[in-house]
Amino acid sequence: MFEAAELGRKISREEFDALAPSLRTELLDLQQQLREADFPVVVLFAGVDGAGKNETVNLINEWMDPRWIVTRAYHKPSDEEKERPEYWRYWRDLPPKGKVGLFLSSWYHHPLVDRVTGETTQAELDEQLERIVHFEKTLADEGALILKFWMHLSEKAQRKRLRALEKDPFTAWQVSDQDWEHWKMYDKFVSVAERLIMHTSKGHAPWQIVEGADARYRSAVVLQTIKDAINKHLSNREAVKKVNAEIKGKAAKAKKGGGPAALASQPSILSSLDMSQTIEGAEYNQALQEQRARLAHLYRVAKDKGVSTALVFEGWDAAGKGGTIRRLTNALNARDYQVIPIAAPTEEERAQHYLWRFWRHIARAGRVTVFDRSWYGRVLVERVEGFCTDEAWRRAYNEIVDFEEQLTRHGIVVCKFWLHITSEEQLARFTSRGEIEYKKWKLTDEDWRNREKWDVYEQAVNDMVERTSTRNAPWTLIEANSKNFARVKVMRTVADALEAALGKAAKRKKGDG
Amino acid sequence: MFEAAELGRKISREEFDALAPSLRTELLDLQQQLREADFPVVVLFAGVDGAGKNETVNLINEWMDPRWIVTRAYHKPSDEEKERPEYWRYWRDLPPKGKVGLFLSSWYHHPLVDRVTGETTQAELDEQLERIVHFEKTLADEGALILKFWMHLSEKAQRKRLRALEKDPFTAWQVSDQDWEHWKMYDKFVSVAERLIMHTSKGHAPWQIVEGADARYRSAVVLQTIKDAINKHLSNREAVKKVNAEIKGKAAKAKKGGGPAALASQPSILSSLDMSQTIEGAEYNQALQEQRARLAHLYRVAKDKGVSTALVFEGWDAAGKGGTIRRLTNALNARDYQVIPIAAPTEEERAQHYLWRFWRHIARAGRVTVFDRSWYGRVLVERVEGFCTDEAWRRAYNEIVDFEEQLTRHGIVVCKFWLHITSEEQLARFTSRGEIEYKKWKLTDEDWRNREKWDVYEQAVNDMVERTSTRNAPWTLIEANSKNFARVKVMRTVADALEAALGKAAKRKKGDG
Repeated sequence: MFEAAELGRKISREEFDALAPSLRTELLDLQQQLREADFPVVVLFAGVDGAGKNETVNLINEWMDPRWIVTRAYHKPSDEEKERPEYWRYWRDLPPKGKVGLFLSSWYHHPLVDRVTGETTQAELDEQLERIVHFEKTLADEGALILKFWMHLSEKAQRKRLRALEKDPFTAWQVSDQDWEHWKMYDKFVSVAERLIMHTSKGHAPWQIVEGADARYRSAVVLQTIKDAINKHLSNREAVKKVNAEIKGKAAKAKKGGGPAALASQPSILSSLDMSQTIEGAEYNQALQEQRARLAHLYRVAKDKGVSTALVFEGWDAAGKGGTIRRLTNALNARDYQVIPIAAPTEEERAQHYLWRFWRHIARAGRVTVFDRSWYGRVLVERVEGFCTDEAWRRAYNEIVDFEEQLTRHGIVVCKFWLHITSEEQLARFTSRGEIEYKKWKLTDEDWRNREKWDVYEQAVNDMVERTSTRNAPWTLIEANSKNFARVKVMRTVADALEAALGKAAKRKKGDG
Repeated sequence: MFEAAELGRKISREEFDALAPSLRTELLDLQQQLREADFPVVVLFAGVDGAGKNETVNLINEWMDPRWIVTRAYHKPSDEEKERPEYWRYWRDLPPKGKVGLFLSSWYHHPLVDRVTGETTQAELDEQLERIVHFEKTLADEGALILKFWMHLSEKAQRKRLRALEKDPFTAWQVSDQDWEHWKMYDKFVSVAERLIMHTSKGHAPWQIVEGADARYRSAVVLQTIKDAINKHLSNREAVKKVNAEIKGKAAKAKKGGGPAALASQPSILSSLDMSQTIEGAEYNQALQEQRARLAHLYRVAKDKGVSTALVFEGWDAAGKGGTIRRLTNALNARDYQVIPIAAPTEEERAQHYLWRFWRHIARAGRVTVFDRSWYGRVLVERVEGFCTDEAWRRAYNEIVDFEEQLTRHGIVVCKFWLHITSEEQLARFTSRGEIEYKKWKLTDEDWRNREKWDVYEQAVNDMVERTSTRNAPWTLIEANSKNFARVKVMRTVADALEAALGKAAKRKKGDG
């Protein structure tokens, strides 16, 4: 795979000087165009030590306007990073739309090094690479331009390069013992790298192998590639926008003609619920107290063990999310939980991948985070109201499953609730809200508008549950015509989930000892 | 001081039940009003263990809508927190406008405990309290409502309370050995608390001492106080808005009549600069190389020692900030610095104190952060264009000095540059920008408008330098008619500052050994 990058390709100073001024101007100009664009550029550098990763990143910062570039390099995770899923630190560093992010020692670093040093098996490596593919695809699907450069040197060239660096007192500091360690494992390193590149070179995030021996050659290749890719992506995105606008236009026409209403006649997963269930009086009070005590105990154990909990609440307007959340959080100490109300994204959130604003709320170890509405907005309101493209909400199911899997793999307990009420019950609640003074603010015109689309929403809920209810992050449908019943069922479900998770954690510990 | 909080005040269940429903409704209603308001509410709890701090915070979350509340409690700082100035973690947790932040074990915790256990002297405590006063004043001056509750118990009552908690298997976990440790030091604790309250109870952030023995009594007092304070603050802010609008109207009228132009005839600090200084050809190249080498070396040493650097660039339009920054960052490894371009604040930033958006960019240990424009916007463009009130930019000088002092106290090296060019030079540069194709984007109508206000800006620069150039964070005025001269001078200044800081650090170390 690397033969073509060991040919000793170089370009002369004259050639380079002839090329440089216009390339530089074009890059600066592209950065200006990019600032108005609706996508970020993610450029990633990996490869053989001494092949010019750092130098190239420095050069890009020198030639381009560093104000619209973020450069990120990763070392050992900080304790705040360790307490979150592995990719949290990459998510929080992603460049917003219009900026270029340069990544060194990125998400490829550990999979590569751990395999070379034998800390992981081939199968584990493959699994890690699979995750990387998912991650990059998730970004690319929302429009990100992803470029990956593998800077290569032959074994001989690497030794020569490291020695040269060591000789020069100005550059000697760049060579660490680790570099020589790595050099001794060159063959192993290159064979793992081959596998890594093969598994993760995709159309939406291709690897480009660059011969790194000659500084001018590698600089020219990288910068040209970046320039061409940004250029191409800018025009692609324009084309995509046009097509989407056309599709939207057609869809709007089709809707006028009747359209999706036909679907509503299908029985949905919600129609199978027994909505008459209720629990009253003393029985309710006792059940509530019981679950409250269980929760109060279990979440403290979870806290001590560093097990976090993420709770997702979705449901019809007026289904009682707020009240249910309050009953639940009453069992917890206020210093250990946060309720995150999800409304329209802020400006900074809009400039990022739609999952970014949820990643930023992933709490440190041992905390409870309650999402009042959530990332499911994409496949509910955004789908129904046409706030995103068809393609976007359709692929969101997988993105969400993948996201939640990252949470559960990290040991976070994830419970998701759909609070269901019947259409008649909703009408009754809307009416009574309008009548009680201090509840009036809760009822908006939008609520009435949403109500008109009940059938379409029901279809969306059905699809959502079908496609995103997984063993580790299951949906629980809550029969919420009776608020009491809903509250007790939610609390019991959370307590059960915690109990199961803590049991597992305890077993795992026992197994260790 | 605490006698009045040891009287055994209580209220009966009947009284409380009579009071509760309307209080609760009013609080919920106020929260709705608050969401549209232009200030955050900061509520802080401190006091004797067992006096109901946690319970009260829980109750507030129960009674009010937890979606518009953030609750924060602090333990040992994380490593990311330790690498920044002490207050960084509080700044990043501040509630945005319209929300309520509840703080437990907050910025008062360590000053209090450290003094009680004898780890700090009286003088050190006083200094810490002084910083707290500054911090709270900074928030209050921008409109924050700050409420501080000291939950009190007599020594006897505390023992009784801790014993009662221990007896009940459901609450026993709440009592730690530390609580009993603290109880043994009750007298010392109370005397330090007295001093703390005396020094930090200010009109803009008063302490309210609450007798904590009776749960109903303390709940009623705290919730009533919060309710009244929010009510009052809402109407105060309305009044302030009106007055500001009036002042603005008058100022606009005065401006039409001539106004501040008179000031411009005063010689400013800028007029004393020798603008003919330049450095050309081989001499320039050599000087640049020299400073570059120095910087490249010094910043690496600083990195190893965990010493961060914050560089501030301000200057006239077209003074060459961008080019100067690029020359400077060329000496650094791209993975170790970030250039932060400061433009209009984002929506999330506008919802916070104006310094918040700079605090969020304070980097971890050993990094270089370059601010291309900065927090000085408040006393430059915001002052001149009337984007903030007169009072706001006038008090900003102190706020800024205080902010920078927090950085330098933490060991961060702070250098600030004003890049000065003459009005004639600016005109020449504007004209040539308009002529070069790839530089055209740099020249906007706003640049021409700013140019018309040269004299007013010059006055603002003069005041800024006069009031914010401190020994630890000095302004360096850069004669930038010659770009070469400017670049060399900036790099030399940064290198000198690093050298001095590292020298100090080394000396300190020697002194230790």
